Amino acid sequence: MDSSHLFIVAVTHFVCYTMDKNMRMYDLITKKRNGDVLSDEEIKFMIESYVSGEIPDYQMSAMLMAIYFKGMNDHETAVLTNAMAHSGDMVDLSGIEGIKVDKHSTGGVGDKTTLVIAPIVAACGGKVAKMSGRGLGHTGGTIDKMESIPNLKTSLEREEFFKIVNELGVSVIGQSGNLAPADKKLYALRDVTATVDSIPLIAASIMSKKLAAGSDAILLDVKTGSGAFMKTLEDSILLAEKMVAIGEHQNRRTVALITDMDIPLGNGIGNSLEVKEAAATLKGHGPEDLTEVCLQLASNMLYLCNKGTLEECMELAKDSIKSGAAYEKLKAMLKAQGGDEKIVDDLDLLPSAPYSYDVKAEVEGYITHINTEECGIASTSLGAGRETKDSVIDYSAGIILKNKIGSYVKKGDVLATLYASKEELFENANKMILDAYQIGDTKSEDKPLIFARVGKEGVERYNI
Amino acid sequence: MDSSHLFIVAVTHFVCYTMDKNMRMYDLITKKRNGDVLSDEEIKFMIESYVSGEIPDYQMSAMLMAIYFKGMNDHETAVLTNAMAHSGDMVDLSGIEGIKVDKHSTGGVGDKTTLVIAPIVAACGGKVAKMSGRGLGHTGGTIDKMESIPNLKTSLEREEFFKIVNELGVSVIGQSGNLAPADKKLYALRDVTATVDSIPLIAASIMSKKLAAGSDAILLDVKTGSGAFMKTLEDSILLAEKMVAIGEHQNRRTVALITDMDIPLGNGIGNSLEVKEAAATLKGHGPEDLTEVCLQLASNMLYLCNKGTLEECMELAKDSIKSGAAYEKLKAMLKAQGGDEKIVDDLDLLPSAPYSYDVKAEVEGYITHINTEECGIASTSLGAGRETKDSVIDYSAGIILKNKIGSYVKKGDVLATLYASKEELFENANKMILDAYQIGDTKSEDKPLIFARVGKEGVERYNI
Repeated sequence: MDSSHLFIVAVTHFVCYTMDKNMRMYDLITKKRNGDVLSDEEIKFMIESYVSGEIPDYQMSAMLMAIYFKGMNDHETAVLTNAMAHSGDMVDLSGIEGIKVDKHSTGGVGDKTTLVIAPIVAACGGKVAKMSGRGLGHTGGTIDKMESIPNLKTSLEREEFFKIVNELGVSVIGQSGNLAPADKKLYALRDVTATVDSIPLIAASIMSKKLAAGSDAILLDVKTGSGAFMKTLEDSILLAEKMVAIGEHQNRRTVALITDMDIPLGNGIGNSLEVKEAAATLKGHGPEDLTEVCLQLASNMLYLCNKGTLEECMELAKDSIKSGAAYEKLKAMLKAQGGDEKIVDDLDLLPSAPYSYDVKAEVEGYITHINTEECGIASTSLGAGRETKDSVIDYSAGIILKNKIGSYVKKGDVLATLYASKEELFENANKMILDAYQIGDTKSEDKPLIFARVGKEGVERYNI
Repeated sequence: MDSSHLFIVAVTHFVCYTMDKNMRMYDLITKKRNGDVLSDEEIKFMIESYVSGEIPDYQMSAMLMAIYFKGMNDHETAVLTNAMAHSGDMVDLSGIEGIKVDKHSTGGVGDKTTLVIAPIVAACGGKVAKMSGRGLGHTGGTIDKMESIPNLKTSLEREEFFKIVNELGVSVIGQSGNLAPADKKLYALRDVTATVDSIPLIAASIMSKKLAAGSDAILLDVKTGSGAFMKTLEDSILLAEKMVAIGEHQNRRTVALITDMDIPLGNGIGNSLEVKEAAATLKGHGPEDLTEVCLQLASNMLYLCNKGTLEECMELAKDSIKSGAAYEKLKAMLKAQGGDEKIVDDLDLLPSAPYSYDVKAEVEGYITHINTEECGIASTSLGAGRETKDSVIDYSAGIILKNKIGSYVKKGDVLATLYASKEELFENANKMILDAYQIGDTKSEDKPLIFARVGKEGVERYNI
């Protein structure tokens, strides 16, 4: 690796664009309001001037509402995304050999897939140089989960990060640098002006960060269902198509899988509980739903790394579990990042919570639905998540779901077990979990875990 | 008149409303964005909190854009208007006997109608206690026109204003007090966020000021055409219907006439030129178009004052010109407000500009169109208007149109005469007037001056 190579290329905020100094945001709002298409120069001007503070929030919020109603075509969305990506640091991963593949999930409860699929991809020859986030509210974050391992570092110097990825094929660290500040500023404004639910704006927000993060290829896990951004499958497919178009427009190979938000993935919710479950999955005895989704995600990432057809990549992924190679990758990565060797060698040694409590069914019948958002909130209330940015996480706290959708339970059967460091937290969490479970007379039909795959080749729907 | 009576009743900003403290602007934006109807309480909360600064501009501009797309029904618009009116002082005209009738024009070039119709209405027994504005940009203001008369006061104490209206039936002064501050703040925001062109927002803006100004009845002159807020007749009718509904909702009898913006009314543009033309019209020898529009406006105001059927009111208005009573009212009012007696007795003594310049046709043909906005801008450039709030007006400057739409002109015929205090201003204004006139081969069809009348009885269309 060439140490003179810059990890972060601070982009000289758009000085390369020749801006029309006579452009006025008022005219751009009018244009979009009237349903017209904004030019590349207009979009760049708008983002640059908004980040610099020359365009006030009250004009941008009017524009965002106009975009909410009038949309943006694929080209506009791609230009917007690129302008947002270039509003801050652009990560340069060229010091890492091979095709670097990133993965993004639109948020989930009990989503420990990164800890499973990154080692699988690395074990099969792909490169994962991933920056992940922390959890906030009811959703967890990969970095928090990793930090449940004593001594493990999630903040590495560039050289060390590159060295681990070059040697092992995988490293996962926390986000550093000033990635896509335009997105941060825009998201904060959308969040208070009811302009979050716009497909081009969601697509630009997600993809601007992914473009800035520097990988060559991107796999998107788009959640669909009642608790997700996208409530319907058709909207989720539209969002996926937009994001794939943006990625391909910027020469990043991009594929999206549309997955079910209406089911907590696997059984564990909570940091060390999820690390243990990820390890079990890599050892071949994880929950069936988690294993299936992880194999699909991993094989698509390998496909993006040119490791063969999708079918061949699926075989590679399965083999890496069977052979133990993927599990060894996880251990090697955790050790390389400083994780306590004894614990990494046997993740079951991760501390358990001192108290547990069984949530028992109050009626008999089939479990027809589990509200994942409420499960996430219950887990946070037990200490597993952050209610504010400064909350301290109890890594051992969380929930193990014992029965999931489709199971038949009798009165008194255990639905889930709660874990916490304080017994008084159980009463409230017990109520929440009972609320989150719907039990009825009729077994609901099986739904696929993955509804569709969207790539530049088009949309492929599964079993629907 | 009871001198203990308050002229301005400072309304104790909404303390009488029981506000839901849990209301959030975010939820109101979402509701409107989704096309739902806002409740009375929600609208009051929104206006109160916006004026007090609790709701930031960036949320209000998102709301305004949502209203632009999703509209407001008649009830919502009426509640919005009332909340905006009550955001500041509410003028109490009950110290003036009889039905007070106000008039509002949505803005025009060469619009001196107030100076003609207020005296006619007073001469026929109506009461006009009118507060008028100043001109800005290319449109003139009645107050500026009146101030071209030496010594005339346009700012009067309450007692004096009431006394003049009680004795003469008419007085026109400048706006005082803090009328509808919510409208001022909202208008400033709409003006920079491309949310001016919304019929419910325009209706609420105009009517909030009229409600606050205290008259019992309101006549609206809604201009339609290329230079106006409302470009099409149908939109103008929609706006008029909204405003009539608001007025009637607040127990103010309201009628709107839809008039032609695509023709400068009368021949004079500029302050003292327009005063002279108004006087000539009251003496019975004004331009035909101006006379016709003024008679229609005045007879509708008299109708709102219960002076008879529309036909009877038209006869009253015509008689007041024939008998000289209306002209005497103008003179009496100008004198009562302190105007120089000698000049009021012969308004032709008003100073003329030292220089004049004839704009001559460069081609032969029929005048097919005159761009009124460009005429207004040309007049302002000659000194007759304000380019900024602090500009000093040259009262003698302006334009007399010598030929209007439908005339056949030969090359070299005078289209208009320019008046100014500096000869160097003519070159540019000459160009603008030549640009404003369209001359073609075919005589365009005559258009009525008044397209429609909108009252609580419905819409009546004229000659279309």
